[in-house]
Parts: sequence; structure tokens; C-alpha cells
Amino acid sequence: MITTEIGYTTIDKITVRGKDLSLELLGKLDFVDMMMLTILNRLPEEREKRMVNLILVTACDHGLTPSAMSARLTYLGAPEAMQAAVAAGLLGAGSVFLGTTQNSAELLIDAARELADDASDEAVLDCARTAIRTSREKKQPIYGVGHPIHVHGDPRVPTLAEVSRQNGYFGKHWRLMYAIERVFRHEMGKNLPINAVGAIGAIIGDMKLEPLLARGFMLVGRAAGLLAHLYEERQHPIGQQLWDLVLTQDERNEIPARKGKGS
Amino acid sequence: MITTEIGYTTIDKITVRGKDLSLELLGKLDFVDMMMLTILNRLPEEREKRMVNLILVTACDHGLTPSAMSARLTYLGAPEAMQAAVAAGLLGAGSVFLGTTQNSAELLIDAARELADDASDEAVLDCARTAIRTSREKKQPIYGVGHPIHVHGDPRVPTLAEVSRQNGYFGKHWRLMYAIERVFRHEMGKNLPINAVGAIGAIIGDMKLEPLLARGFMLVGRAAGLLAHLYEERQHPIGQQLWDLVLTQDERNEIPARKGKGS
Amino acid sequence: MITTEIGYTTIDKITVRGKDLSLELLGKLDFVDMMMLTILNRLPEEREKRMVNLILVTACDHGLTPSAMSARLTYLGAPEAMQAAVAAGLLGAGSVFLGTTQNSAELLIDAARELADDASDEAVLDCARTAIRTSREKKQPIYGVGHPIHVHGDPRVPTLAEVSRQNGYFGKHWRLMYAIERVFRHEMGKNLPINAVGAIGAIIGDMKLEPLLARGFMLVGRAAGLLAHLYEERQHPIGQQLWDLVLTQDERNEIPARKGKGS
Amino acid sequence: MITTEIGYTTIDKITVRGKDLSLELLGKLDFVDMMMLTILNRLPEEREKRMVNLILVTACDHGLTPSAMSARLTYLGAPEAMQAAVAAGLLGAGSVFLGTTQNSAELLIDAARELADDASDEAVLDCARTAIRTSREKKQPIYGVGHPIHVHGDPRVPTLAEVSRQNGYFGKHWRLMYAIERVFRHEMGKNLPINAVGAIGAIIGDMKLEPLLARGFMLVGRAAGLLAHLYEERQHPIGQQLWDLVLTQDERNEIPARKGKGS
Repeated sequence: MITTEIGYTTIDKITVRGKDLSLELLGKLDFVDMMMLTILNRLPEEREKRMVNLILVTACDHGLTPSAMSARLTYLGAPEAMQAAVAAGLLGAGSVFLGTTQNSAELLIDAARELADDASDEAVLDCARTAIRTSREKKQPIYGVGHPIHVHGDPRVPTLAEVSRQNGYFGKHWRLMYAIERVFRHEMGKNLPINAVGAIGAIIGDMKLEPLLARGFMLVGRAAGLLAHLYEERQHPIGQQLWDLVLTQDERNEIPARKGKGS
Repeated sequence: MITTEIGYTTIDKITVRGKDLSLELLGKLDFVDMMMLTILNRLPEEREKRMVNLILVTACDHGLTPSAMSARLTYLGAPEAMQAAVAAGLLGAGSVFLGTTQNSAELLIDAARELADDASDEAVLDCARTAIRTSREKKQPIYGVGHPIHVHGDPRVPTLAEVSRQNGYFGKHWRLMYAIERVFRHEMGKNLPINAVGAIGAIIGDMKLEPLLARGFMLVGRAAGLLAHLYEERQHPIGQQLWDLVLTQDERNEIPARKGKGS
Repeated sequence: MITTEIGYTTIDKITVRGKDLSLELLGKLDFVDMMMLTILNRLPEEREKRMVNLILVTACDHGLTPSAMSARLTYLGAPEAMQAAVAAGLLGAGSVFLGTTQNSAELLIDAARELADDASDEAVLDCARTAIRTSREKKQPIYGVGHPIHVHGDPRVPTLAEVSRQNGYFGKHWRLMYAIERVFRHEMGKNLPINAVGAIGAIIGDMKLEPLLARGFMLVGRAAGLLAHLYEERQHPIGQQLWDLVLTQDERNEIPARKGKGS
Repeated sequence: MITTEIGYTTIDKITVRGKDLSLELLGKLDFVDMMMLTILNRLPEEREKRMVNLILVTACDHGLTPSAMSARLTYLGAPEAMQAAVAAGLLGAGSVFLGTTQNSAELLIDAARELADDASDEAVLDCARTAIRTSREKKQPIYGVGHPIHVHGDPRVPTLAEVSRQNGYFGKHWRLMYAIERVFRHEMGKNLPINAVGAIGAIIGDMKLEPLLARGFMLVGRAAGLLAHLYEERQHPIGQQLWDLVLTQDERNEIPARKGKGS
């Protein structure tokens, strides 16, 4: 039978996860409760909910990222279809940006599978060494370390770690992540500090959630950030200027002077 | 200057709406606060936040909608790129589904521009008559009424109206929406009850938000619902069965028997 | 019955538009024949095929357009899912870029519905005046004129007109398009020369094809151009530089020096 | 410098691959010539062009595939943004459908790297055995064999092989693909005939093109097929029926009777 356990609909009622949407959910749950109920078929604990909020806030946005640029450039061509601009902004959430939280969670969960929750620091370091070696052998990157801008350390990581500790989710995956950073620095001479992706991978591992949700939460959070960018783009458009700026990098291109635009 | 007021980044700090993301936002705000701060450059009031949660919960999901089907069919072909499946599910949020909340808000805000907040019922009915007539003249649909499944009335609407009342957002746009329903029923003999789209259009109007946000909130909420569908699809896939089901509708198609699948 | 007339499949045969794909189409038709057969359920005439090739070549590409930028920025985040980068590049084909060929064709076909094929120049000018006035009254743009870069005239238009003439497709829609340009210049004092969008709108009208195909052909042709950009991006990536370039426009952003990169 | 070698634009001229688009390309080249010039910076040989046409025709379409279904379901919600429906249809071109031609080409090119062009049949079989074993060790699928519908053999493959032979592109990659089929059948007792994906992977290898182009050509060809589906959907919509059909599979769903619709 083709069916979903998420919900069903009759002429008079909508049921989501066994509850009457209109009478039991709308106005009674907030969005994060509803999202987690829909995904996991149970309400989140308070501390889980704080962590999911933490991840969504991290994902939301901070300035002109490639996803915000794609969304604005798409909106420039199709302002009547804002959903297409949001979708374009999400499509880059792959193995290099945003979506890489899933790869990071997979790497940590795989590597820490045999690690005891109360493993010694030395055991965790050993596990980190193995994880780095295994990734190299498979010619796969180590996800979750280094950042093109925050080269001295990602400023979000200490807060993400602290909130994880406060809520009881600083476990073996977080410890492994820190051990990977340490092995890179002290044994391999490489400055590759943990980034937000690695922190979220560790959180997903320590919350015992599926890696797919790591990528998924980034998409939900980023959708909100893209909405903010498109809201601003509508009032103060910069899409055309982005295009002009890029064209003028190649001196063979020639564009007419634009009145009232800063390019 | 090409810039955004949303935020900027230095090597050591990320600033969003003038706040230090790591020290002032992460772990201190929840997702809806963060979304609204990013969009509006101010924190929402408590009652605004309740309404935004209400809209996001409405948008989240309820079963195998066209957006959930597109997402699952996309995941079937590209499970390694879940962001593409979420994007595919959002792309139909146009003038017929989901995105139509924007059209509904635009219609109501345009139509009620000259209507006083304390207008008489008769004045609101007049406004509804004008709105219907104007839309017909422009050959545009009246957004926000009727539903392909909930033909006797959308079960979400009474709750959406009640929560709006409780929070002080049942104003002239909601009244106009009800008046439109009434004119259709009593003066034109048409059973076109308000649907969730119309309710959200009215809420956006009465919250004095931009119509673009009506569509945007649906995208954010639906992203969460799509995540739930893809999480289920990964564990209990139905994508191939959906395909088989559709193929077998046309007797010219012939597909081999599949073991262990119910189509 | 849920079915498509495009084709069906049995265990041993694939049928497209009534033909055996393997025995009658593969290796016997070229791509444009196949596309037109699939769409129209008939093979194109030679002159139709020349025109469709003309449109696809026009759509293909020419440098760093917003669609190429979106595609490259998406590829930067998700190189393992190149389909997402192509999709992101197509998503801006709306009412402002590319997709606007559909709007242009609709405008011309609507406006010229009552115009005789051999109408006098004066009648065509009248029709142009009416079209401009009607669009203004509806607060809709006149599609197909003006260009942000080619301010003295779009260099593609004379060739598109000439090839149309050679193939017998320079009819009343082309004449109307030229008349619109003339009315703007001589009667309204506005320099708004026909652009490629207007030319393609006119061609679609004079080929008696549906406006939807105008947008559709642009998508097919542009998909090829985006493929070229992503092929180059893979070998000589500029995505990260695009990001750095944009960030450095706002002096509040600070990015580290990158070795071997020109930003 | 941020630049592309594909083309550039001045106020009066568009240059693509060093040629004047308006004077040297439009009306002089057909679409496949233009696509290959744009990608490879050279015109294709006649026999290359025949092969590219062959691949594009293969990719075009054949009935209600998951990509066609996603596109139609997206169009149902957003008919005003047809580009979004085409994009939704392309987004599933990943490691399972369509995009898997890239994986197939990569597998064959990697495996045959050391194989001489005139290797003995036994050497090719050895190479096939190694390729299968290596993929298993890496827990990766063998791409290009088996089909959910064409269980006795993909009817397109003999034609694809024949046209490859006629044009001098039946080389070591095609031979390896056939050897893989043979090893599965005779040594492992598995009926996994070559499918169109494997054939296209072999063609790309024997044409000495990059694997990325295998996926890319599928996207271009499929864009045309999706256009045909959306053209039909506009005139004879089945999107709503698809939804109703799926809902009625789960007896908990209840939908009203629809007049004049066959579900």
C-alpha cells in the first residue's frame, strides 16, 4: 500500500501523526514542536527542542553567502516566483556548504561506533587518528574542520559546545570532533579548527539523530535566512549590481553607465 | 555599494542585524525570533510570534500533497542530494498552492486599503462585492476560497480565526475574507468557503506584514514537512511504487512484477 | 484515465509518439526533430527546424549572466549534484529574463489577433499604439524592448529578423514588434529598441506556436549554456572568487588573504 | 581575474568563443554545433555530432517517468512559472536516474585506464572482473546494468551500440561494458543486462569526453522531454488526477467525487 504515516485527510478533518491538526495542533504547538512531531512521530523533550532551535538559528543566515547570492540573482529574473529563488538558494546545500553537516555527522557516527561513551581521552584521540587515516585512504575529505574566512577558529563553535554541555549533549561525538582538531594541530602541524559544520555533526551524533536531519535542519533554517534576503532584495535590490560587478571584472565586457547605481 | 543590512562577517566575528551571532543570538533566541529578527530587523512581540508559529504549523504538512510527491520522486533519483528533493517540493508553491497565500494577502490588502478598521458590516460587504467584481473584470481568480478536498469548509479556518482573535489580529482583512465567503454564498449562490490560504492572507493583512512574507512563511514551514517526508522515504520508500502505480493506469504500459512491493 | 500521449513503455519496447524509439528514432532523428516530434506529435518542416535551431542558439549563452552565476555558485556548494546547479541556473527564467519570451509572445499574439496578415503599415502602427496603451492601463510592462547592456540596439535582432524572412516567418507579429519600437521612438521620444526577447516573441507568433514554447525553448537552449559554464567551472573554478568579490564590496566584511587567488 | 572563456559582451556585440554571435553563429550553426562549441571551444566533427544527437534523443523522454511526474505536479501548483516545473523535473537526475550516466562513465574510464585499445577479449573480461570486485569492496553499485522495467534487456542498447560502431566509437569502454554484463551472467549467475545508462557511459568513454558531460547531455535532452510533458499538461492536465490517485491508495484518505475526472 502506498501510504505515509505522516498524515491523511478527509473531507472534514486533517490528521497529522494521529492528531487532529485543527483541534490538537494549530495554536497549541509551536513550529519546532510541530516539525519534530512530524519527523519523529513524538514531541521533542525540552532540551532536544533547545538544541534544534540552536541548529536552526545557526543555519539561518549571515550576510551574502553563495546561497543568498543565488537566491537574489534568481529573484532578479523571476520576482513573480519567489519560491524559485528560495529553491535556488537551497540547491547548493551539498557536500561543500550546509549539506556537509550530513557528511560530518556520518563521519563522526561511523568513526565513534565502537567508542564507549566514557572512553578515555587517549581512546578518543586514537579514534580521531583512525578517522583521519581512513578518510585519507578513501580519498574523502575530513568534514567539519577549517573555514575559508574564520581561519583562526569559527566563532560559533564555543557557543555551540557550551549549549550542548548545558543540555547534556556533549558526548563522544563532540569529544571526537575536538580530538580531530587536536590531532591535526599537534601531530600533523595543520591549523584546521572545528567549524560550525563539525559542531552540528557532533550535536546530531550526540543527540542520536539520523545524519539526514543534519542537512535537513540546515535547509529549514536557511530557508528563513533566504526569505530575509529576498525581502530585502524586493525593497533594496542589489541583483543587477551583482551582475554588473561581475561583468566589469573582465575588461573585455563593456556595460553602459547606470544612473543611480553604484557599480 | 553592494551590501546587505542583514549581516556581515569578519575573520573573528559574525554579525547579524547588529548583534554578535555567537555571543548574543545563538542559544539565546529561538528559531522564530531569529527568523523575524533577520527579516524585520527587530524581535517580534510575543503575540506576533504566536501568529508566525501558527502560520508555520499550518504550512508544515499533512500527507501526500503534490509537494511531498515531487520531493519523494526526486529523492528516488538523487538520494545523495536531499537538498534537491526539498527544493523540488518547494517549487510548486505558486499561484495555485501555498504561494497563493501571497496572492490572497495582496488581494485583501488592496481591496481593504480604504476600509476603516471599525467599518460597519455593510461597508465590509460592499468592499467584498467590489473585490469580487474587480477580480472578475481583471480575469483574476478570487484567492482564498474553495478547496478541492474540504468542500464543506476548511477545518483549519475556525482555529486560525480564533487564534487571531485571541492575539488581537482579527481585523478588517479577516472581516473582508468572511464577507467574501458570505457574498458568494448568499448573493451568488456559490459554496466557496474560506480556505487556509485565505485565512493566512487575512492574518498577514491584519498583522500589517508584506504579502511576500505570506508565501515565504509557507516555504519555511513546508520545508520542515518535506524533511519529514524524506526522512520517512529513506526508511520506507514509496517512490518506486508511486511510479509503478502511475504507469499501470495506462494499460499500454507494461511493467514486470515486483517482489515484495504492493503495486 | 491518467495517461500521456507522449509515450509508453513495455518490458521489451519504448514507444514515443507512436514510433519505436529503438528502431525508428534513435540514430535516425536528430535532437531538434525528436524534441519537436515529442512536443507537437509531428516532425517539423525543414524551415521550422531552422527557426527552432535559431532560437536554441540564441538562448544558449554568452558570458557571466545571472543564470550562469547562480549555477556556478550552486556548484561551489554541491559539485556532486550538477543537476542542481543547472536547475538553479534555469530558475531565474521568469518574467524579467529568458522566460519573458513567453510574455512577449503572449502580448504580440493577443494584440495582433484581429490584425490581417497583409495589414497596411498604418494599421500595424495603430495596433502597436493600442498594445502600448493597453499594457499601460493594465500596469503591465511592454515586453521585448530595451536592454540593460545593448542600449543602442540588440545586435542579435537584425540577424533574427533576416533568418525569419529567409524562412517565411516574418509576418504580422514581427511587423508589430517593429511598429512598437517605432511608436516608442517617434511618438513617445523613448529609445527602446527591440531586444532578443521581443524577436523571439515575434518568431513564436509568426510560427503559430504556443507562447509556452517560447519560454520552453529558452530553457532547453540555456541548459546547454549552463553545462558549458559548469564544465569550465570544474576545470577553472571562479565560484569562490565570486563570493570573495561580493563580500569585499562591503568594507565591514573582512576576509583572509587567499593564496593564488585574485580577489 | 574573474572571467569566463565562454564569452563576453559589449554594448554593440556579443562574443561567444571568439566568434561574433550575431554575424558568425546565429543562423549559421545548429543547436548541437553551438552547444559543443560553447562547451569544448571547437566545433564537433560530424561523427561526434551524430553521437551527441544520439545521446540527446535517448535522454529526451518516454512517458510518465519520475521526472515527468515531478514536473507536472510542480506545474499544478505554479503554472505561471514553468521554469520551476522543468527544474523540478531535472532535480532527480542523480546517482539513480539520468545522472548515473556520469557515474557509469567514471566507473568505465577508471577501470579501463590501463586497458589497451586493442586488448584481447580475455584482458577485457579480466578488467570487468576487477571492476566488479573493486566496486563491491568500495560498497559502490555497478552502474549501467539492470533496469526496473526492461528486465530482459534494454531495447535501446543494441541501437546505441550499432550507431557507435558506425561512427567509430565502439572502443574499449563499450567492450568493457559488455564484458561486465557477461561476467554477471556467466560467472555470477545474475541477469543484469546493459541499460541505456551503461551504454551512454561507454559512449562518453569511447568519445574521450569528460564524465560530467554524460550527466549534462541527459539534462539538456530531458529538458526537451519535460517541455513536451508540460505542453501536454497545459492542454490536458493530469496533475490533479495524479494527486487524487495517490491519495486514494490509502483508505484513510477521503476525497470528494470530482465531476468529469476519471479518478
